[in-house]
Amino acid sequence: MSDSKRSVEKMQTCTNLELNNVKITSEFWNRYRELIVKEVLPYQWSVMNDEANIHIADDPQKNGTTKNSHAIANLKIVASKIKGHHSGFPFQDTDVYKWLEAVAYSLRYHPNDDLKQIADKLIDLIAEAQEYDGYLSTYFQIEAPERKFKRLKQSHELYTMGHYIEAAVAYYQVTGNEKALNIARKMADCIDNNFGLEKGKIPGYDGHPEIELALSRLYELTHEKKYLNLAYYFLKQRGQDPKFFDHQIEQDGFDHDLIEGMRNFPLSYYQAAEPIVDQETAEGHAVRVVYLCTGIAYVARLTGDQDLLTVCKRFWNNIVKKRMYVTGNIGSTTTGESFTYDYDLPNDTMYGETCASVGMTFFAKQMLQIEPEGEYGDILEKELFNGSLSGISLDGKHFFYVNPLEADPTASKGNPGKSHILTRRADWFGCACCPSNVARLIASVDQYIYTVHGSTILSHQFISNEANFDNNISIIQSNNFPWDGNISYKIKNPGENKFKFGIRIPSWSQCNYKLQVNKKDVNLPVKSGFVYIFVESSQMQIDLSLDMCIQFIRANNRVKNDLGKVAVQRGPIVYCAEEMDNSAPLWLYRIKEQAQARYHYNDHLLNGIGTIEVDAEVLNEDSKDDLLYTTVSNKPYDWHESKLSLIPYYAWGNRDDGQMAVWLNKEY
Amino acid sequence: MSDSKRSVEKMQTCTNLELNNVKITSEFWNRYRELIVKEVLPYQWSVMNDEANIHIADDPQKNGTTKNSHAIANLKIVASKIKGHHSGFPFQDTDVYKWLEAVAYSLRYHPNDDLKQIADKLIDLIAEAQEYDGYLSTYFQIEAPERKFKRLKQSHELYTMGHYIEAAVAYYQVTGNEKALNIARKMADCIDNNFGLEKGKIPGYDGHPEIELALSRLYELTHEKKYLNLAYYFLKQRGQDPKFFDHQIEQDGFDHDLIEGMRNFPLSYYQAAEPIVDQETAEGHAVRVVYLCTGIAYVARLTGDQDLLTVCKRFWNNIVKKRMYVTGNIGSTTTGESFTYDYDLPNDTMYGETCASVGMTFFAKQMLQIEPEGEYGDILEKELFNGSLSGISLDGKHFFYVNPLEADPTASKGNPGKSHILTRRADWFGCACCPSNVARLIASVDQYIYTVHGSTILSHQFISNEANFDNNISIIQSNNFPWDGNISYKIKNPGENKFKFGIRIPSWSQCNYKLQVNKKDVNLPVKSGFVYIFVESSQMQIDLSLDMCIQFIRANNRVKNDLGKVAVQRGPIVYCAEEMDNSAPLWLYRIKEQAQARYHYNDHLLNGIGTIEVDAEVLNEDSKDDLLYTTVSNKPYDWHESKLSLIPYYAWGNRDDGQMAVWLNKEY
Repeated sequence: MSDSKRSVEKMQTCTNLELNNVKITSEFWNRYRELIVKEVLPYQWSVMNDEANIHIADDPQKNGTTKNSHAIANLKIVASKIKGHHSGFPFQDTDVYKWLEAVAYSLRYHPNDDLKQIADKLIDLIAEAQEYDGYLSTYFQIEAPERKFKRLKQSHELYTMGHYIEAAVAYYQVTGNEKALNIARKMADCIDNNFGLEKGKIPGYDGHPEIELALSRLYELTHEKKYLNLAYYFLKQRGQDPKFFDHQIEQDGFDHDLIEGMRNFPLSYYQAAEPIVDQETAEGHAVRVVYLCTGIAYVARLTGDQDLLTVCKRFWNNIVKKRMYVTGNIGSTTTGESFTYDYDLPNDTMYGETCASVGMTFFAKQMLQIEPEGEYGDILEKELFNGSLSGISLDGKHFFYVNPLEADPTASKGNPGKSHILTRRADWFGCACCPSNVARLIASVDQYIYTVHGSTILSHQFISNEANFDNNISIIQSNNFPWDGNISYKIKNPGENKFKFGIRIPSWSQCNYKLQVNKKDVNLPVKSGFVYIFVESSQMQIDLSLDMCIQFIRANNRVKNDLGKVAVQRGPIVYCAEEMDNSAPLWLYRIKEQAQARYHYNDHLLNGIGTIEVDAEVLNEDSKDDLLYTTVSNKPYDWHESKLSLIPYYAWGNRDDGQMAVWLNKEY
Repeated sequence: MSDSKRSVEKMQTCTNLELNNVKITSEFWNRYRELIVKEVLPYQWSVMNDEANIHIADDPQKNGTTKNSHAIANLKIVASKIKGHHSGFPFQDTDVYKWLEAVAYSLRYHPNDDLKQIADKLIDLIAEAQEYDGYLSTYFQIEAPERKFKRLKQSHELYTMGHYIEAAVAYYQVTGNEKALNIARKMADCIDNNFGLEKGKIPGYDGHPEIELALSRLYELTHEKKYLNLAYYFLKQRGQDPKFFDHQIEQDGFDHDLIEGMRNFPLSYYQAAEPIVDQETAEGHAVRVVYLCTGIAYVARLTGDQDLLTVCKRFWNNIVKKRMYVTGNIGSTTTGESFTYDYDLPNDTMYGETCASVGMTFFAKQMLQIEPEGEYGDILEKELFNGSLSGISLDGKHFFYVNPLEADPTASKGNPGKSHILTRRADWFGCACCPSNVARLIASVDQYIYTVHGSTILSHQFISNEANFDNNISIIQSNNFPWDGNISYKIKNPGENKFKFGIRIPSWSQCNYKLQVNKKDVNLPVKSGFVYIFVESSQMQIDLSLDMCIQFIRANNRVKNDLGKVAVQRGPIVYCAEEMDNSAPLWLYRIKEQAQARYHYNDHLLNGIGTIEVDAEVLNEDSKDDLLYTTVSNKPYDWHESKLSLIPYYAWGNRDDGQMAVWLNKEY
């Protein structure tokens, strides 16, 4: 790793501006962020303590039939506070850790001593549950202590500890709680002591990537090189011996699925069929892929490893250019919650797991830290305002695990191939990875707005905020985004430092935007999605006006399921039609060739949303007495003038049950 | 049953014309029927004897992973000819019985001493395998003799014996082999001794209907009333105690799936959730439904039971008017090979099992025997020329179990939700119900052309033939159907008997047909799909000219998946586009609003087929370098003039692998 070392140094020396603090002032995001504090965190805490009176939805994969979470109870059992058996998935602990991470972020913008006390006590409990050598996975500690690290294909042990490490890094950064950090260090040391190519160590890796990005975060905080080396090892070793998992099971001699049904998944499900540098496309479980990609991007940046950088970009391009829904959702099949093949994007049998979109935000953020490419910001924005946000209800207590682009309660009930598509948000899930994942994202959205490269500040997300950088540089970003496209920046630079300020021009606005510096129009070249303004004065006012016209989007015609259809988008927001606002069946509507569309902000609907009305025509529904099949000449289509009323995709499923569609028929 | 008895007598007394013999002269069907004799039966015999060098496709339901059939070997093991374990499904014996039934029919039109010897020896083997009390199910005899009749939910024991009874009835009728019939009687007696509401008997029924129709056939041959009573009992008892199956398993105390995965299916899968008179819709496994319906129709006719008649019609209407594909295929989901809900007819994730279409022909035939309703003949024709026939290749040695209306090899390989859709026909299946089922249908197609009601002869299928009836009445039907719509009948009636001759006017021709009697135009009313001609002279010539124009068919717009699409039909033949004749992807074609279509018979293609060419337009495929999503204004659709070349649906999958589609985009 001598080459890598040099690159690390090179990359670090050119960084001289640091982002210190961002205070979100966006009305849109602050509503969600207060919801996190007031509703989401208390609600999730009560669920994990089995104190909430809720109905846990069948897990989308039909695994696990827990009646309650039991996540805190599992830790208490290990810590000898109570007696009992483990309940839930082998990775049940991660619900707690992701919640703790969300708490950490929330304390930064909403200090809360009561909550901090709960979290501190939770850390005490976790410390008691941790073994002397640093190991912590309640499932194995309770149910199979003799099988620790012996069934890595399904065990999720490193995945689980990785989530704790992430939480601890965040909690320490916000609160300075050393105990939390020490638990994480002990975990990482435990893993380091057990994994590697050295004699006596396990020459393997976890079936579910996560530890790679967690160790990178721990390295960034502690500068402990062995953590980065360990992350690097996991990435390099993955898939080198395709028989590693099976050999482990053979050696253990106990061939029993930890998670029902997983036995049948191919190695590509785990991204472990071949070394990752040889993997050409994003295959298998979508969340695993994006967690892996995030880890690769972290390590590529921190080590400067060009092979890993190439891998990140290849995965990025494959996902974003060939396997992503227009809402940012990924995962085209419920079988293994997985990717399928290029351009296969069915809307009504898809998966689009909330966690996968959340994972894409991590990946995009890392890529932005590697290079100032606007596309990373475009996709990050798409995920923040659509595919991730759709996972949580407006009341903060109901969730989607699967995010379809077309839903029909009758189909979900009546066709088993669509039974994974809930049309009513669930209180909680047997596999409850998504609720806490979206919570930690929203609570940390302040970390997704700016990226600093050396002496360049990139503003890639339009979320009102007040940000402070080194050298007393501050930026006040004001807007009413995503409803309004006027973005203003007030830059204060009392030390008259010289730096570049890059503003992302979103792909949806690149044909039409206006930029003013100190109230004067400027015309700057867009370079890889950004315009750059050189700052050296003590104050600067920048005004950007983005194109908020309503756009009809079509898919590449290699996507069979979207042919002859359009999605409606305004700014970053992708819209959908719900049965609540339009008569079912939605497939009888058609947007006319030269259709007009009107935008209207409605303060009283769904906590305040911009709605869109599109000129359309609609067919009368054929009668049940009509023949099932008839010649076109006997019964031609008979169109009537109509309108389609659309709401933002993220806000669907917050009212009564009914049909929903993102892709709408269009005369073509 | 006193009311029923009276009805039986009434229905029987008005029957006075009997159909004696039908000799098929149709070129279309004789090619298939000779294929049965020369290729299909020898091939299937070698497969069942494990002598064919073939690849057995994964079963569509992923059950069973047999490397060979083992069907004859199972019988030999029970008959103590060889040693070994049972292999295959619990109903493996039925492959042999359906083959035997097909042999019986073939011997009628193609006498073959060698084949008859093989069949006679097979019957000897079956006799040796049968137990003293009449029981025969090799799975239970070999593997679980203590569990006979104790696990009826999955055991298929009565289903299996039912198939033997059907074969025996046919074989006896053709060859007079008494031994074959006696085995069947012993089986039926065994079932009668074991099942019923009397004390000591099992108050249940088989999880897979079939025995009801088999016992009805045995009753029609033997006039042994107890067989009809037993069939009636099975129908009346079905679903009376929804806990019957589970109680059996509890009592047995051995909770083990006979067929992996079946445990999770609901009782509606077995049509056993409630009494059949209470079942409003066709639910569950499609083949079970249509076998049950056939049994109900048999027993309704033979007993005159009006409740059962109502049930038949309700099932018929639900299937035909709300749950059937335009090709006659049924079963909208692979999960449980089942029906889903009204108007749910997805084309690329569907099932459409060959056996289910074959079963629909049985059901339609029975309904025609109950009443002269043209719709029964329409659907029978649809199944014969499309949904059933598609199950067998032109070479007789390759088969489809699943018959999709849209197929794409890339999707079948890459999307697990479509992996059940083969795009290349298989040599054989682990669950090999379909190949022998379509064989017995083709071999007996002579029994599907006429139906006699009292003194009325109904000609409901246009298949050239020479038929002899009682009283020296003979009918020579000549045509080149399905390619040509000119149908001629020469009736000879030397005894100058008075009878009515009903000819079905197909629904696809009811607006436009011509009828001549003795070369003079006649204009007769169409009554429930038939025109009736009174015959009393010694000779009559009838000429019918059907409308063979090419029709664009659309679905009721409640069918989401067919909106904006048309199917192309000419006469009874539904057409499809194959990638072989058109450039992929097929979804980029669109039939223009006023499109012209041309028919051409091609003697050299696919054993001689009528092809259709339709004016169409097509889009250039977007580049892989193009964006996945773009605004419509940036990249509008750019159409080019083109043509679509179509072939009959039944003939698809006989050339290279590629896409196929029945429903084609149409400007709408």
